[in-house]
Amino acid sequence: MAQENADQAPNVDVEALALLLDGDHHRVRTEVRETMAEYASVLTDAEEMSRDDFRERVREVVVEIARSGQAGYGFPEEYGGGGDIGASIAAFETLGFGDLSVMVKVGVQFGLFGGAILQLGTKRHHDAYLADLIKGELLGCFAMTETGHGSNVQHLGTVATYDPATSEFVITTREPDASKDYIGNAARHARLAVVFAQLEVGGERHGVHALVVPLRDEGGQVVPSVRIEDDGLKMGLNGVDNGRIWFDGVRVPRENLLNHFADVTEDGEYTSDIESPNRRFFTMLGTLVQGRVCVGGAGIAASKVALTIAIEYALRRRQFEATDEEQEELLLDYGLHQRRLFPLLARTYALSFAQEVLAGQLHGVFSGTISDEESRRRLESRAAGTKAFGTWHATRTIQECREACGGAGYLAENRFTALKADTDVFATFEGDNHVLLQLVAKGLLTDYASDFEDLDQLGTVRFVAGLAVDTVLERTRVRQLLEGVRDVLPGGDSDDTDAGLLNSDYHRALYTFREEHLLGAVARRLKRGVDEGMNPGEVFSRVQDHVIAAARAHVERLVLEAFLDKVDEQPEGDLKDTLSLVCDLFALSGIEADRAWFIEHGRLTVQRSKAITREVGDLCRRVRPIARDLVAAFDVPRELLRADALIGPAGEAGAR
Amino acid sequence: MAQENADQAPNVDVEALALLLDGDHHRVRTEVRETMAEYASVLTDAEEMSRDDFRERVREVVVEIARSGQAGYGFPEEYGGGGDIGASIAAFETLGFGDLSVMVKVGVQFGLFGGAILQLGTKRHHDAYLADLIKGELLGCFAMTETGHGSNVQHLGTVATYDPATSEFVITTREPDASKDYIGNAARHARLAVVFAQLEVGGERHGVHALVVPLRDEGGQVVPSVRIEDDGLKMGLNGVDNGRIWFDGVRVPRENLLNHFADVTEDGEYTSDIESPNRRFFTMLGTLVQGRVCVGGAGIAASKVALTIAIEYALRRRQFEATDEEQEELLLDYGLHQRRLFPLLARTYALSFAQEVLAGQLHGVFSGTISDEESRRRLESRAAGTKAFGTWHATRTIQECREACGGAGYLAENRFTALKADTDVFATFEGDNHVLLQLVAKGLLTDYASDFEDLDQLGTVRFVAGLAVDTVLERTRVRQLLEGVRDVLPGGDSDDTDAGLLNSDYHRALYTFREEHLLGAVARRLKRGVDEGMNPGEVFSRVQDHVIAAARAHVERLVLEAFLDKVDEQPEGDLKDTLSLVCDLFALSGIEADRAWFIEHGRLTVQRSKAITREVGDLCRRVRPIARDLVAAFDVPRELLRADALIGPAGEAGAR
Repeated sequence: MAQENADQAPNVDVEALALLLDGDHHRVRTEVRETMAEYASVLTDAEEMSRDDFRERVREVVVEIARSGQAGYGFPEEYGGGGDIGASIAAFETLGFGDLSVMVKVGVQFGLFGGAILQLGTKRHHDAYLADLIKGELLGCFAMTETGHGSNVQHLGTVATYDPATSEFVITTREPDASKDYIGNAARHARLAVVFAQLEVGGERHGVHALVVPLRDEGGQVVPSVRIEDDGLKMGLNGVDNGRIWFDGVRVPRENLLNHFADVTEDGEYTSDIESPNRRFFTMLGTLVQGRVCVGGAGIAASKVALTIAIEYALRRRQFEATDEEQEELLLDYGLHQRRLFPLLARTYALSFAQEVLAGQLHGVFSGTISDEESRRRLESRAAGTKAFGTWHATRTIQECREACGGAGYLAENRFTALKADTDVFATFEGDNHVLLQLVAKGLLTDYASDFEDLDQLGTVRFVAGLAVDTVLERTRVRQLLEGVRDVLPGGDSDDTDAGLLNSDYHRALYTFREEHLLGAVARRLKRGVDEGMNPGEVFSRVQDHVIAAARAHVERLVLEAFLDKVDEQPEGDLKDTLSLVCDLFALSGIEADRAWFIEHGRLTVQRSKAITREVGDLCRRVRPIARDLVAAFDVPRELLRADALIGPAGEAGAR
Repeated sequence: MAQENADQAPNVDVEALALLLDGDHHRVRTEVRETMAEYASVLTDAEEMSRDDFRERVREVVVEIARSGQAGYGFPEEYGGGGDIGASIAAFETLGFGDLSVMVKVGVQFGLFGGAILQLGTKRHHDAYLADLIKGELLGCFAMTETGHGSNVQHLGTVATYDPATSEFVITTREPDASKDYIGNAARHARLAVVFAQLEVGGERHGVHALVVPLRDEGGQVVPSVRIEDDGLKMGLNGVDNGRIWFDGVRVPRENLLNHFADVTEDGEYTSDIESPNRRFFTMLGTLVQGRVCVGGAGIAASKVALTIAIEYALRRRQFEATDEEQEELLLDYGLHQRRLFPLLARTYALSFAQEVLAGQLHGVFSGTISDEESRRRLESRAAGTKAFGTWHATRTIQECREACGGAGYLAENRFTALKADTDVFATFEGDNHVLLQLVAKGLLTDYASDFEDLDQLGTVRFVAGLAVDTVLERTRVRQLLEGVRDVLPGGDSDDTDAGLLNSDYHRALYTFREEHLLGAVARRLKRGVDEGMNPGEVFSRVQDHVIAAARAHVERLVLEAFLDKVDEQPEGDLKDTLSLVCDLFALSGIEADRAWFIEHGRLTVQRSKAITREVGDLCRRVRPIARDLVAAFDVPRELLRADALIGPAGEAGAR
């Protein structure tokens, strides 16, 4: 059956496709692949070692990676870093092929702890800490989340009070649920913490600020007035030592305030260039966006591992006779198996390219080549959306791949155990995915207004209610777009339901229409609710799933455009044909999944909707002959796949 | 916000609702709840003990349960059993509230091993083994699955050759991938195995049969010519000792053949009352249907645990201001949170009632009150479908509940870790869910024809191709059904898009229409493909997702009818109103999820489809005030929830 469509299939140059997927940072990714392959034994250590031993093992590997320089790309060269933020994202994503405790501990140390010192601190902090932390000689943690305030960071309960008598800050956990929680590196290894606390100066509160607070002395003993509790066993990532921290009047020098955005003078005067406390808070948080970008990328990388295993397995495993009475059929030749795996494979490609665009924008903003406020806000929004998409995609893809490998997929040696357990929290940490999508929607609804950060969810409702709805609607390009593909849309000139199904302008038009229509509708509903005198919070609650749908539609459109742009960039030839085929499958399976909405909103006829379902089946059959090449191009090191029983010993499988 | 709808909400009598959910076997369920609560420490042992120690601990608990008689309900009283199959299903389901390694080991020992001895054996086997195995003094395993033949049992590669010279069977693993695999109890504890092998007598093959084969001696040493390998670490269920088994010419007496359906005389003559080898095979397998019924029930039970924790948490946890500037909003008052959890809650109720119907039918068939062939086949089909639904529901529900509990849900102490990992394999074992749905479809397409069992998937295609399609279509009651609800369907007399949305006849009509339309369409596509000369295997592959959709639609309809019947049975009053509200939410959220299909097939207008989406939101708001009662009625013992940090210490939470 695979042969039937082989003549239609492009000839895939796996090397070239792999290079394309690696993008600008092929060299960095190659280095990190080699390192991960070298430390492949960590994958078995995770199963065989005690939790304590495994935590130490992961620490060792993280320190080794630090020494190699592969964890420091994002830091300034004068402190021993690589001065290349794009490279640091690429390196981190590639870590996602290996043991994810190692990846997360790298993220905690260099992304969160190091990133906070770099972005929120000034030269005195950089001089004091960066060189050592880049080398992995000074381990730290990032103490933001509290037990009672997960996503609502602005309302956390730890307080840092300035004492002018001694020029110190006094840090205290005031409420029972204000203990810092789930803090990576806290239970064992961190000597320092960047602690987020409500800053109180002269009896006045100035909002959340970050300070450097010692947790342990040189000998690893927890310092007085700090209490640390181990978070204990987790679903996964047990190589990372998460813990809870309480502060009971811990005193640190005034200079420990990370004072890039605000400072307190010795005699207790609070100063900041940013007047609004809300904007100050969101500006600080905005500098930490890199963590979200990394987690989304890691989710995509983990999906690549799972798909490589599941597709290689389906190319070896036979079950039941079907086309041939002598031989059982390969799993991958079953239409349902293709339907289960190929749209996820296509989406993995799409998200990879979307992630590449995001990483490029991050690089631009943080290296200073892009510096306007709106770009910064768009970056934050895009990072939020891509993180949510990449991590949910990982959860779904790993689950489907596990089930597609049957009972064997349940054995730990076949990687799904760790992939599932370790990635599960991605949907929650670095921002709960639903909260992140609300952030995306807020940006869209307020058009990234300059006072955007001032708006909490109540504020957003009130802001939108205050707008003429036309303000939102005017921004839509829908009418113009639809004009371009008139003939293939309902009410258009064509009677042929299959016409233009694979036209990328058509895909773009549908994705854009959905986004803008949803956005307009949400704005109208919010406004109407408030106009009718409903409590704005209740309006929000009622419209919330609509708000999330608008955000999703926006991010879907960005993902599609990233893929379309990538296809457009290629010269004519097999590589372009390959990408174009995969992009069509991504675009159409996305429309198929939401076809009810498109029909409801007059953008699909019933006939056309059915034609799309048929076309997705056809596209899957066309992808079948190149499926092995498509996963081979992910270039997951064979050592990291393990799964010998599923896909054959190393050197034998088609996967590189 | 919760208050707003409180006046519309029925007054829930939690005790009465709990009794209703427990059904006929309240006493048995209460006993098992108490036992599980008593052994709640196993839940922490799973985290704290070494794998070896935990396996021993689970064995101990299983033996304790056996001694209490709670594992033996399904066996005849003369051997110390309870003589009540319905009770045994109820007991097993209730085990699903506790540690799932315990439950699965009970299933392996009493359901699979014991069930095979009981159903496939005759008095000599019953006399020899039942009394000891019911008491847990003789542990055994069920060696069916092979490494290379997961779902395709009929083609397994182990061979049992009769040697008339010694009146023995010689059992051999002939091919490299014919080792028995994933066999629970094999790696450590089983002294005996029921081994499924190709029976070879006088050079002739008679298909798959089962024999009792010793694996270990009294001292626990593996006997000669048997080799056993540990399957090693698994994603979950690590209290169960799964292993691989190879047989190298193991000899067992002729009497070890489980000879209920076929026998071999001493001089080597094969005899059976069932002439067709295929039918013999499926008749044997059919007697083991109880395992599937149990696994589906266990999935539903695990979903109840997850929902109880997530809903109690959402009734304590506040996040962000919404309706009140002074206090953050309860998670459960967010529209999206309701949308995420309540349809799953409603579906859990629906599946519970569907499972109750299934268990009743199983009881009827196996206790002999129902004995016709067609009922038996319908039971097998229903068991297959309910198992697939119950287990996928568990995967989805546990995942959503984990995410709804944020970072805290990731800590092992909060149960999601074990629930996720342990239930993951449910979609695979006791029959891969997709293969099971194909079985359902086969039954439907062939109308449970008497030679149903002879049909593999190729046979099904050829069988259907040979029918006049009208044969399938004639069975449909669609036209008649639609007549009854004409006025609320498109093209009907009513212009009111909201009319009759909560009419249960309307729900029933839509579910039935979908099932029968899909079935007819599948039959037509299969027939057309073969008529056009396509390879039947390829026809099947292309139509496969449609086949699965038809099976799903059938099972959905059965689930709906079980719920509707349960509502109808209740006298007027709050209990009926409660069930009716939950049933409406189940039915309409199911239609909403598949509304594209209903629109495509002319059963929903666009206006009506949108009205359904609004109505689901309204129903969620109406469920909100009784959500705590709805989970409390599941009556999961507080000890088994753990999760003190999420839902407060025992005795404090609303959950019982």
